[in-house]
Amino acid sequence: MLTELKREAYEANIALPKHGLINLTFGNASAIDRRKGIFAIKPSGVDYTALSPSDMVLVDLAGKKVEGDLKPSSDTPTHRRLYLGFKKIGGVVHTHSSHATAFAQAGVPVPIFGTTHADYFNGDIPITRKLTSVEIEDAYEWATGNVIIERFLADDLDPLDYPGVLVNRHAPFTWGPTVAKAVEVAVAVECIAHMAMMSLELAPRLKTIEPELLDKHFNRKHGPGASYGQK
Amino acid sequence: MLTELKREAYEANIALPKHGLINLTFGNASAIDRRKGIFAIKPSGVDYTALSPSDMVLVDLAGKKVEGDLKPSSDTPTHRRLYLGFKKIGGVVHTHSSHATAFAQAGVPVPIFGTTHADYFNGDIPITRKLTSVEIEDAYEWATGNVIIERFLADDLDPLDYPGVLVNRHAPFTWGPTVAKAVEVAVAVECIAHMAMMSLELAPRLKTIEPELLDKHFNRKHGPGASYGQK
Amino acid sequence: MLTELKREAYEANIALPKHGLINLTFGNASAIDRRKGIFAIKPSGVDYTALSPSDMVLVDLAGKKVEGDLKPSSDTPTHRRLYLGFKKIGGVVHTHSSHATAFAQAGVPVPIFGTTHADYFNGDIPITRKLTSVEIEDAYEWATGNVIIERFLADDLDPLDYPGVLVNRHAPFTWGPTVAKAVEVAVAVECIAHMAMMSLELAPRLKTIEPELLDKHFNRKHGPGASYGQK
Amino acid sequence: MLTELKREAYEANIALPKHGLINLTFGNASAIDRRKGIFAIKPSGVDYTALSPSDMVLVDLAGKKVEGDLKPSSDTPTHRRLYLGFKKIGGVVHTHSSHATAFAQAGVPVPIFGTTHADYFNGDIPITRKLTSVEIEDAYEWATGNVIIERFLADDLDPLDYPGVLVNRHAPFTWGPTVAKAVEVAVAVECIAHMAMMSLELAPRLKTIEPELLDKHFNRKHGPGASYGQK
Repeated sequence: MLTELKREAYEANIALPKHGLINLTFGNASAIDRRKGIFAIKPSGVDYTALSPSDMVLVDLAGKKVEGDLKPSSDTPTHRRLYLGFKKIGGVVHTHSSHATAFAQAGVPVPIFGTTHADYFNGDIPITRKLTSVEIEDAYEWATGNVIIERFLADDLDPLDYPGVLVNRHAPFTWGPTVAKAVEVAVAVECIAHMAMMSLELAPRLKTIEPELLDKHFNRKHGPGASYGQK
Repeated sequence: MLTELKREAYEANIALPKHGLINLTFGNASAIDRRKGIFAIKPSGVDYTALSPSDMVLVDLAGKKVEGDLKPSSDTPTHRRLYLGFKKIGGVVHTHSSHATAFAQAGVPVPIFGTTHADYFNGDIPITRKLTSVEIEDAYEWATGNVIIERFLADDLDPLDYPGVLVNRHAPFTWGPTVAKAVEVAVAVECIAHMAMMSLELAPRLKTIEPELLDKHFNRKHGPGASYGQK
Repeated sequence: MLTELKREAYEANIALPKHGLINLTFGNASAIDRRKGIFAIKPSGVDYTALSPSDMVLVDLAGKKVEGDLKPSSDTPTHRRLYLGFKKIGGVVHTHSSHATAFAQAGVPVPIFGTTHADYFNGDIPITRKLTSVEIEDAYEWATGNVIIERFLADDLDPLDYPGVLVNRHAPFTWGPTVAKAVEVAVAVECIAHMAMMSLELAPRLKTIEPELLDKHFNRKHGPGASYGQK
Repeated sequence: MLTELKREAYEANIALPKHGLINLTFGNASAIDRRKGIFAIKPSGVDYTALSPSDMVLVDLAGKKVEGDLKPSSDTPTHRRLYLGFKKIGGVVHTHSSHATAFAQAGVPVPIFGTTHADYFNGDIPITRKLTSVEIEDAYEWATGNVIIERFLADDLDPLDYPGVLVNRHAPFTWGPTVAKAVEVAVAVECIAHMAMMSLELAPRLKTIEPELLDKHFNRKHGPGASYGQK
């Protein structure tokens, strides 16, 4: 069932350690079939080298496992919350990549300092508020999704204009029209975070990029006027 | 004799350079057979590429070599002291991994800033006091084990809640129920130290993680209510 | 047509990720045939692993595509502007390599602190001014080349004495008599930027290298008295 | 002639990029036959991948090339000066490894903060004074050796207790009884410099290691009481 979806999710999961985004077993990717309302996600705590496409667990949007011998990732409720809140996304990726996680732990958004960043995000990489004690106790992974959605609603951010977020004290989540694109954004987020940290070291009061340059770069790659690549 | 134990110790030792934890020949791993009171440890100063399982040296808890053609690691008395002091551990790993060693040299514990850290330690990664001149002169490697035990007794820390330590001016030691788990913690310690250093750079007065979030993550992976992985 | 030129440009492009200079698909290299006034450049947004020499796009100095099935790199007008402004150069390389880009984003030239730097540049690595809103709107990539040329004219810098530049808010461009040399300089720029950042961290008020030592090293490798290598 | 010596020098040279110590072609190693007064050194500016043992150039202690088709490294006079000044050394290595070079550029010795450092050096890694204009003009590479010797004479340092140095504004040189040992020290110097920089970041006023601990570690590996390894 949904063999192609499981293969896509599998490919995304094994791409994460290849891109140096995975420390230990922290990280997971999922891909959704919107028509069926089912997503394929990595099983919990399984080593990346031991994965196969058929290990992917199928879960529906009500949170019910519909296929799979293994337990799905402990972060499954966060993925599910994102698929419910962000209707246009087709894949979600979670990593603990080092530089992005350093920002998340520090409670600091990644400021947009240059064109590399502007090619992916239409502004700073946002960061959620911290979870409350009740949220942590109650349904922690679901609440993690909630604070992400809350952050986007608060500033009316389009999840395709801001294809990722830092969860406070935790680590980044990214997404995209496809899970392959969510992997690419996860690579970009780590790279952007590293460069932003170094730019701050060189110029501690550095201001963010000028709006015209941000627009230029973001729109070269997004929207109706996109001119980048072979399209 | 104890072929399986020697293989486990060997696998742990050769895993260290694969994880980028070894600078030069600094580092060693051992595994204990608690029933026999014998542990298998790396020989001293031998290059990792030249090791074989049969090179592992067997030492008993009185410090007597019971099998092996080579001299055991110069850190053997530290491993022995830890096995005697921490009854529940089955393996010990020592590295000079760069970021963790930077904290050890600076005399600074690794503060717990995020969930990656909380998945492994129930608080900051502790650091020992410095050794006295007499301790250094007398039985240096044994005394190194002593100050670790002293640090844990002082704050009544459970070695399975805090599966590692920084030895002041020196480097990290980690442990676990098995030596394979001790290797995993050694990887985590290096990664956590790196991310903590960067979070401090971004937010010099950053406070440690909120207790509820620490509890949540630590208990997801440890103790009777653990929900992570395929158990 | 121009098979050898396309092969040179291709070799340069695939060398970039091998040297760790490419994050994602950011980066491109081109090589010019001065007699014909035609340069070969990477196609836009194509993955480095999928490139072949015949994918290189041929463009003339008026900006017209003269051969190739694919769209040329979106940075083509910048390359063209550089070939028009710097008559002696035979190849151009653009990367978003992490440390150099951190300086570019911060708006800070890379100060010349040691002999590694002096072997490649006859002073600090220059940085352009920011582009104006009109320049960004109008012909962004061409204007990027313009501000580079403007920077070199303002201080009467010889592009072979300063074989690279940081574009403000963006990233480095390098060049040389051949595209292979431009790749080598791109590697040097990233390495020099990394070391300069660390030297600044160790000595925040560090002055630049003494003029005699700069001259000695620069002239060992450049000009009529060059003594380095097998020439 | 001296086939074995050339092989040793060759092995040392190709080990440098394997250990990540070489940026571009910066770096060279030589080994001396003290009985014959001849050393084998890397040819100038040749890529490491293209080297073979027979490319090594033989030079005598008067500076005369005694065998070889290629020009010796431009740093040959520095190696020669070191062999003349330090009678007990058998090999010399020069790199521009990133962290050590950052200290050299900043004019800062690498402070001895921990036991990793103490296993190799009996104190801080020394740094030379800057060369004068006359020294730079006159016989630059020979003068580079001179300021190293001068630094060791000034504080009566034994080159086997301090098997390396930073040349101000330039980069590290290391040495040892054999060129293989000089390579090992070059690896250690880079690693020690990296960790010292991070310890300083964590504790800007950090004092150097206590003398008793320094003695203990240095003497575990050096001198008549050495207990490390299989000796």
